[in-house]
Amino acid sequence: MIAEIVAVGSEMLTPFRQDTNSLYLTGQLNELGINVAFKTIVGDHRQQLASVAATALQRSNLVIFSGGLGPTEDDLTRECVAEALGLELKRDNDLVAAMYKRFAERRLSMPENNARQADIISGAQVLPNRRGTAVGQWLQRSQNEALQIVVLLPGPPHELQAMWEREVLSRLRGIAPPSAIATRVIKTAMLGESAVDARTAPIYKKYSNVQTTVLAGQGQVEFHLLATAMSKQEADEAVEKLASELQDELGDAVFSTSGESLEEIVGLYLQMRGAKLAVAESCTGGMVAERLTSVAGSSRYFLGGAVVYSNDLKTLFADVPPLLIEAHGAVSREVALALAENIRDICNADIGLGITGIAGPGGGTEEKPVGLVYTAVTDGQKHEVVERRFFGDRERIRRWASQQALDLVRRLMM
Amino acid sequence: MIAEIVAVGSEMLTPFRQDTNSLYLTGQLNELGINVAFKTIVGDHRQQLASVAATALQRSNLVIFSGGLGPTEDDLTRECVAEALGLELKRDNDLVAAMYKRFAERRLSMPENNARQADIISGAQVLPNRRGTAVGQWLQRSQNEALQIVVLLPGPPHELQAMWEREVLSRLRGIAPPSAIATRVIKTAMLGESAVDARTAPIYKKYSNVQTTVLAGQGQVEFHLLATAMSKQEADEAVEKLASELQDELGDAVFSTSGESLEEIVGLYLQMRGAKLAVAESCTGGMVAERLTSVAGSSRYFLGGAVVYSNDLKTLFADVPPLLIEAHGAVSREVALALAENIRDICNADIGLGITGIAGPGGGTEEKPVGLVYTAVTDGQKHEVVERRFFGDRERIRRWASQQALDLVRRLMM
Repeated sequence: MIAEIVAVGSEMLTPFRQDTNSLYLTGQLNELGINVAFKTIVGDHRQQLASVAATALQRSNLVIFSGGLGPTEDDLTRECVAEALGLELKRDNDLVAAMYKRFAERRLSMPENNARQADIISGAQVLPNRRGTAVGQWLQRSQNEALQIVVLLPGPPHELQAMWEREVLSRLRGIAPPSAIATRVIKTAMLGESAVDARTAPIYKKYSNVQTTVLAGQGQVEFHLLATAMSKQEADEAVEKLASELQDELGDAVFSTSGESLEEIVGLYLQMRGAKLAVAESCTGGMVAERLTSVAGSSRYFLGGAVVYSNDLKTLFADVPPLLIEAHGAVSREVALALAENIRDICNADIGLGITGIAGPGGGTEEKPVGLVYTAVTDGQKHEVVERRFFGDRERIRRWASQQALDLVRRLMM
Repeated sequence: MIAEIVAVGSEMLTPFRQDTNSLYLTGQLNELGINVAFKTIVGDHRQQLASVAATALQRSNLVIFSGGLGPTEDDLTRECVAEALGLELKRDNDLVAAMYKRFAERRLSMPENNARQADIISGAQVLPNRRGTAVGQWLQRSQNEALQIVVLLPGPPHELQAMWEREVLSRLRGIAPPSAIATRVIKTAMLGESAVDARTAPIYKKYSNVQTTVLAGQGQVEFHLLATAMSKQEADEAVEKLASELQDELGDAVFSTSGESLEEIVGLYLQMRGAKLAVAESCTGGMVAERLTSVAGSSRYFLGGAVVYSNDLKTLFADVPPLLIEAHGAVSREVALALAENIRDICNADIGLGITGIAGPGGGTEEKPVGLVYTAVTDGQKHEVVERRFFGDRERIRRWASQQALDLVRRLMM
C-alpha cells in the first residue's frame, strides 16, 4: 500500500512552522504496517492544492489530507480534493442544522460561511469532530482496479489525533493488510554517534525484517526498532532478537529499553534505593536540576541544590574553600568533587552531584579550553569524578554536561 | 516564480525525523522575495523519487533538492533528477581525480562507490562542498519558454547551508525578480495567544503588503513581519508602519523588536544597570537559572542561586522560616517574597527573584490548584509579587512560570 500525507496550510510554507501532524500520522500508520511513501506540504491556494491532490490521488492508494477544513474562504481542501476526484460536493443538511443548533444554544447567530464545513464529497462518510467544528471525511473507492482511500482530517493536532483514534483507526484496520508489529526503543548515554553506528550497523543491517532508526542527540543515541510480520509472535521475536544483540554490544551504556528518559531512569533508581539527591551546578546553570524536576513526582527523591555560577556562591552555598578554587581553578577535578561532597552534606542528601566547566564561547584557555567539564558524584562512601572535553556550541556543551552528570548518578547506583 | 523544495531521505518518512532544511531554505528564499509553493518529502526509492522529480519539474520554475547525494546505492537524487530532466549523467573526471587525491593524502584507498559523487547532470555546474565530499549541482534551462532552475544540495544542514551561502545565493540573486525585503520581529511576554490575536488581527490584516506570522509559545507571542517591495525604502516603510501600530496596541508587553530572547533582554537590562541577579526557585526547579545561563556572558550579571525544591532547602538556602511555610503554605505570596528577599541578601545581589508554585500533575488542592504560581522580585527598595494560575501540563506550567519570573525582572528595571 502506497501512503501519502498531504499537509495543507500556507503557514507551513514559512520559515517558522513545520508540519508536525505527519509525524503522528506516520507513527500510527507504521503501527498498522503501512509505510509512508510521500509527504507533501502545500498552501491555501486553489490551483496548487488541486494539482497536489491530483498528483497524490494518481500515485498513492491511501491519501491523508490534514488542514484546510475550516469555514473561511482560505479553507479549500474539500473543493480541491473533490475536483481532483472528479466528484461533486454536496451540502449535508443535517450537519448544517446541527451547526445552527450549536450556535443557537450559545445565543450566537451562525456566520453564513460556516455552512461550508458541511460540504461533503459525494460518497464520502462524515467523520465527527468532538473537539472542533470541522468534520472529517472518509472516502473509499476503486481506482485502477485497486482500492483507494482518501481521508480528510482537520489541522489542529488535538482535533486530528482524536478523530484518528476514534474514527480512522478502526476503518483502516479493516483494510490494511493483516500484519502485526512490534517496537522497541534502546537508549544509550554518553556514546558518540558515529562510533556507535560503526559498532552497531553491522548488527542491525543483518536484520532486514526490522526497520532500525538511529537518533542521536547530545550525549544520547537511541535505536528505534520496528518489525512487521504476519503474527505478533513473529514480530516480537524479530525485535527481541535484534534488541538483545544490540544490548550485548552496547553494554551498560544502555540506560533504557522501554522509552524512559535518562532523568526518569535516575529517578526510578533513586526511588528504588530510597535515596535523596542534591546538586551543585556551575556551567550547566540549573539544567541538571531542571531536567530532574521535569519528571512528575521528583520531589520524592530530589531535594534541590544550588546554582553556583559565581565563585562566591560556590563558597557560600557549597562551602568550597576559596583557597581550593585559587589552587586548582574553579574548573577542576578538586572543585567538582568538593561541590558534590559538600552539597550532599549541607542538604543532608544521600547522593551529591557537582558540575563545573567552561560552556563558552568565551572563558577558555589553552590549558582549560572551552568544553572542558568536570562532573563528580558521591554517596559518602565511594565517589567518582569524570573529566570530559565536549565540542560544539554553548547549548550543546551544557546539554552533554548535564547528560554526563545524570549518567554518573545512574552508574553510581547500578 | 514558483519554488519547490524536495527533501530526499527515507529517515524523514519515519515518525522521528523532520525535514528541517526546508525551514532554512524558505527563510533564504523569502529574503530574495521568493515564496515557496510546495514542499515534498520522498524516500531513497528510485521510482518514487523519479516521480516526485518529474512532478516538481513540471509545476515549478525553481526546484531545490536536498539530500541523496552521498556515495551509497541509496543515494539516488542525481540519477532520478537526470532521468526526470531527460538528461545524461556524466562522470566528471577532474572531480574523481580530486577524490582519489584526498583519499591518498589520508593514506586510504577510495571505495569504488565514491566516484558516483562525481556524476554530473549534463549542462549542470558543479557546486563545491567545503564541508563534505558530496558536491552540489546547479542547472539552468529554458522550459516552456520560461527559465527553470534546478539545484541539488547535500542533506547535512551544515553542508547545505555553507553551499547555499557560498554558491547558490549569488547565482539566485542574479535571477530572482528585483525586489527588496524588510523584516521585523516583535516579541511579547505573558499575553495569551487568542486575546493577542483578537486585538492585533484587525491591525495586521489591513496591511496586505506585509506578511504577518503569529507564533505563540508558553507565555510568549511573536509577530514576524515580512514586506516585499520594489525598493528597500518601500519595504522598510511598510514593516515600520505596521510594527509601530502593533507596538502601540501591545504596549509594554513588547520586550523585543530585534529578535532577542527574554533571557537576553533581562541580561541586557541587568548589564545596563550594572546589577547582579540571584534566584531561588521551587516549582521551576532550575529552569529560570538555566534560561539565564543559556546566554553567553551571563556570569557578568547572574550570580546563581538555589533550587529549593524541598521545604528544608527553602529554609537552608533561602532562610525562609519554617513557621512562615507552616502559616501560609510553601506555595504562597509570603514564601515567594521571602525567597526573593532572602536570596538577594544571602547572595549579596542587587535583585532577588523567588518562584514557588504547583507544577502538577499531583499536589493540587481546591484552594491551591495545580498551576498556581507565585513569583516575586525585589531590588531591596521596591518589590512585586504576582499570583497566576497557569493551565496545561507540567512542562507548560513550568515554562509559563519561568517566563513570568523573567518578565518580572524586566518590568522591575523598565
